[in-house]
Amino acid sequence: MSANIISIASDHRGFGLKTLFCASMKDRGITVEDFGPTTDATRCDAGDFSVKVVDSLRNQPERMGVLICGTGQVMALTSNRFAHIRGALCTNSTMVRLARQHNDANILILGAHIIGQEVALDCLNAFLTTDFLGGRYKDRLDKLTALGGL
Amino acid sequence: MSANIISIASDHRGFGLKTLFCASMKDRGITVEDFGPTTDATRCDAGDFSVKVVDSLRNQPERMGVLICGTGQVMALTSNRFAHIRGALCTNSTMVRLARQHNDANILILGAHIIGQEVALDCLNAFLTTDFLGGRYKDRLDKLTALGGL
Repeated sequence: MSANIISIASDHRGFGLKTLFCASMKDRGITVEDFGPTTDATRCDAGDFSVKVVDSLRNQPERMGVLICGTGQVMALTSNRFAHIRGALCTNSTMVRLARQHNDANILILGAHIIGQEVALDCLNAFLTTDFLGGRYKDRLDKLTALGGL
Repeated sequence: MSANIISIASDHRGFGLKTLFCASMKDRGITVEDFGPTTDATRCDAGDFSVKVVDSLRNQPERMGVLICGTGQVMALTSNRFAHIRGALCTNSTMVRLARQHNDANILILGAHIIGQEVALDCLNAFLTTDFLGGRYKDRLDKLTALGGL
């Protein structure tokens, strides 16, 4: 695993899966920082919570992030505006493995209303255990980095 | 359908699906501009083709885009750096419908090595036929627009 700390956030629709993920990672001895929300009783905007995780990863290569909303799209659209973010919206663990191996994804993005709990846990496991392959994938990533962003 | 013209591009791995999509849209009377590649015989970088479609959508609200690579991730990471892009990586037509209804997605992004041809055609159909819902989703999009980007 390339990260020592996981920053996580959701909206109200992703809150249940976030709670499950936090417990799962703590059981594995992984340090988790939960950027909210603290309840699913109130509707909230995924974008507001996305930027908290984005900010926590700035100049912190030892951190990776997890973002969960209803479909994942708001989390993906918001976080990927930023130059230091490679946020991978995935619906199965094969996509997650490839996003780590080929794209060095540093945020896993899931839609809690799109995939089920067991598929989501397999996605989290793939994210935490798969390393970037480097080589020609590094050359491609360098072009993305050169593009810039917020 | 909210767009009159579809800009499309792929990498070598998405070339076959791009060819199928171009034929399908032309059969439906949709104007398609194909930004390449023109062959799958040579390995190419999805990011290079992504920015061609991104550029074609700037100040052109009558256009939407389609981007296809192996997993979709390079297309998603590259295009979503830009302030005028809402690129939705999807693996089924339910995700596409919601990305149009809730996020006014203006680029459909698919992974040709992740989903099969029939699922992909259903995704394209949902993208072309589903309208943005507006209302409270408009308020959320306005925050994304205010965030900026490249």
